[in-house]
Order: sequence, then structure tokens, then C-alpha cells
Amino acid sequence: MHKIDLYFTPSEVAEGELADKLVIVIDVLRASTTSAVALANGAREIIPVASIDAAGELKQKLGKEHVLLCGERDGQKIEGFDLGNSPLEYESKAVKDKALIYCSTNGSRAMLKGGQGALCLVGGLVNLSEILRFSLREGKNISIICSGQNGKFSFEDAVTGGKYVAELEKQTGKELEKNDGAEASLCLYRREEGDLYSALRNSYHGRFLVSLGFESDIREAARVDSIPIVPLLANGRIVRHQPETENVQ
Amino acid sequence: MHKIDLYFTPSEVAEGELADKLVIVIDVLRASTTSAVALANGAREIIPVASIDAAGELKQKLGKEHVLLCGERDGQKIEGFDLGNSPLEYESKAVKDKALIYCSTNGSRAMLKGGQGALCLVGGLVNLSEILRFSLREGKNISIICSGQNGKFSFEDAVTGGKYVAELEKQTGKELEKNDGAEASLCLYRREEGDLYSALRNSYHGRFLVSLGFESDIREAARVDSIPIVPLLANGRIVRHQPETENVQ
Repeated sequence: MHKIDLYFTPSEVAEGELADKLVIVIDVLRASTTSAVALANGAREIIPVASIDAAGELKQKLGKEHVLLCGERDGQKIEGFDLGNSPLEYESKAVKDKALIYCSTNGSRAMLKGGQGALCLVGGLVNLSEILRFSLREGKNISIICSGQNGKFSFEDAVTGGKYVAELEKQTGKELEKNDGAEASLCLYRREEGDLYSALRNSYHGRFLVSLGFESDIREAARVDSIPIVPLLANGRIVRHQPETENVQ
Repeated sequence: MHKIDLYFTPSEVAEGELADKLVIVIDVLRASTTSAVALANGAREIIPVASIDAAGELKQKLGKEHVLLCGERDGQKIEGFDLGNSPLEYESKAVKDKALIYCSTNGSRAMLKGGQGALCLVGGLVNLSEILRFSLREGKNISIICSGQNGKFSFEDAVTGGKYVAELEKQTGKELEKNDGAEASLCLYRREEGDLYSALRNSYHGRFLVSLGFESDIREAARVDSIPIVPLLANGRIVRHQPETENVQ
């Protein structure tokens, strides 16, 4: 691994650019955090979809047994859905052994883009070290896709991406080749590293979530390494990567 | 004026978002710089177009007299065109009284987007103070569109945009309401403000231009306030704003 590209929005990614990359998709408020919590609490899989209609159609196909409709529009649970996008909703009793059809404004779209990579992980602050361990072991060049906010740059994803870049350079012990986005994210992270919670909280989306009463979700999202699992996207489904399986092979 | 939005790429701009804004389009390497040089050297107007085909068609329509085809692909002059994208080519003897049909990879597209604003200026470092003077007099909220590079974030436009944000706050004497992009650009500018030439030079596109032998274009682009004119886009054409006309009205 010698190169990191970071994209501030999924639309920056050009056709074919991810083909041989290990991709890390970041939507720290809140899809990355929610995915980690859901899988840690026993969800069988998370299936990102691009639209509410696609979510409904997939549920028709999969049947109602053990399937939940999850996601948000404008930060709130979608009407008729089982769960919204707050990680606090994804308790074991709600999600254990369930397949979660997941539709959020930004995160699920970035995940679908990330699926074009050779490998794709969904990473936040809560599982940073685990994601890095897995990624460095793979050895591929890394592309980080920030989900952004309604197609726009988002500060909280950029700072989180910058922490990934900083840690990758620290752990490999070398200055990596970085695209302009990775270079810029590092600069933003350096300004904010003393207080990541406030960086998330003060972003446009952070302030919006506070206005909706979701401040505790931001606290949850900012707890570095609190949920040490690797959500791995393969064939359109995010599952929890099981290290023990890997050792057996 | 109390609000600045900054977009790192034109595709971040949502439909209708610019309607009541004063827009500043930035492509510091090199369209912003080249536009200022061309107008300062007497070009009658610059007409941005989205594609090489559109440039050819427009030339057919306008006739060959006093019309030049200008622009680049991959940093180099387009085959059959009169001028490339180096500001050094836009001397008085080449451009005086001419209409320039202008097609660059990033800048001309950003200009076309910027045309959706109530007012649209094309700004670089070379005309920063003039653009700010004009903009503050207008009093509208400001949207800065960075052209980016092939649809991606570009460091040099972001730092230049950050200088606009910094100067707007300094000159208005207040902290303005900023979107996440404006906030981030300010952070990047603060790191680079001591040496803007190097910031431009070390960006991905800066290094690419150096590899093509265009290092002097970067020096030209980094000379703050060296070309104190305001390129104003109206009805699809960029013309030099004439302050004396304004005084008469």
C-alpha cells in the first residue's frame, strides 16, 4: 500500500477508478456508526439501496420474515419504515438475526458506489482501528469515499477521512502518495484532532442533527474504537467480517 | 452580505441554489488567470462553452472575423484552436478586440454553472481585491464555485477560495455564516497563506502543469492583485466590468 485517494463526495469518483482499490466508505453521521452498531448487535446483513421505492421492492422480494426497512429522509425515520438512522435504535432486540434494508440520504448511495471497489468496508470513528488493521493486511491501495451531504462536501466526513489518512501514514511509517482530497482532509483533521466530538457537532449536519434532538448520536459517532468490528460490503450486502474464518482458510 | 457558500466542484451546486447569489467562479490554474489577462489585454469578450464541438459550432455562427478558438484538453492547446490555456499566450497582439470562444476542461464548465447566479464573476488571485470590492458593493450573499479538476476536488482552487473567504471576513469585520466548504477552505488557506505559489505548485494540477513546462503559468497565477480587473459573466459572455460606466448610471 503506497497510495491513498480521498473523495469528498461520491460523484468525484470516476468510472473504473475503484477497480483494484480497497474502498472505505465514510458517513460518520450516521450510516457508518449505525452499520457498526447494527452488526455488533447481531444484524445478519445490511443491504444498502438507493431509494425508498427500491427499499419497498426489495422487501416485497425478500419477504417480511426477519427483514426490516431502515433509513431516513431529512434526518427522520421514513414513514412506514421499521427503524430510522439513529444508532441508538439498533439494539440487539430490534436487529438480531435480521436483514436490514437500508436507505439513507447519503450513506447508502456512497456504499453503492464503494461496491465498485475490489473490496469495500464501511468505516467510522467507532471502528477505525479495526478497519485499519484489516486494510493494511490486504495491502491494496486505498480509496476513501466520504458520503457528503446531499451531494455536497461535509466537514464531519472530511475530518474523519483525515484521521484515517493520518493513521495510515502513522502505521505504515511513511508519507503516502495522496491525492488533493487526502492532503486536504489531513489538514482539516490536524486542526480538529484535539476534539473530534466538537468537529462533528459543529458541522452543518451535526448542527442539524442537534436541532432534531439527535445530539447523543453525535456522541456515539465520536467514540473512537468503541465498536471494534469490520463491516464488509460484498455482493450488495454488508456483513460483519469474521476474523476467525480468515484464520481457518 | 452575511453568508458565504463555497463549493469544491460545480456538481455540488444544487438546482436553483444560486438564483439570488453573487457567484465567484475560481479556476486559478488557469482559466481565472487567463480570463483576467485576456480582458486586460483588450479581448472584447470571452464565451465559455462546454465542449470542443460546441466551440466549433459557435465559431461557424459568429464567423471567422475577430473570433478565436481557445482552450485546452489535458493541459495542451486543442488541435486546430488558435490559443491554448496559458495566460502568457493571451498577449495584446493576439487578443485585442477579439471574441474568444473558450473551452477548458474545468473552468468553462464552472463558468456555465456560475451563470445561474444573479451575478457571476470569474476570480483568481491576480484580481482578488478588485473582485472583492465589486462583490462587497453589491451586498448579495456570495457563492464561490471552485472548478476542481475533472470533477474532483482541487487543492489550488480550494486554497484560493479560502483566501476569498478570509478576505471577505476581514473586510466586513465579522464572522460570516459559512457552509462546510467555506469553513474547510479557510482552514486550508490558513495553512498555506505564507506561500501561495508553493500551494498552487504542489497541488496535483500544479505538478501536472510543471511536467508540461508551464511552471511560469503558476507564477503568473500566484501574483496577487497583479491584474486589477473584474471579469463579469452576463448572457453567456465574460466582459471586463467598466467602473466608469457604473458611475455614470
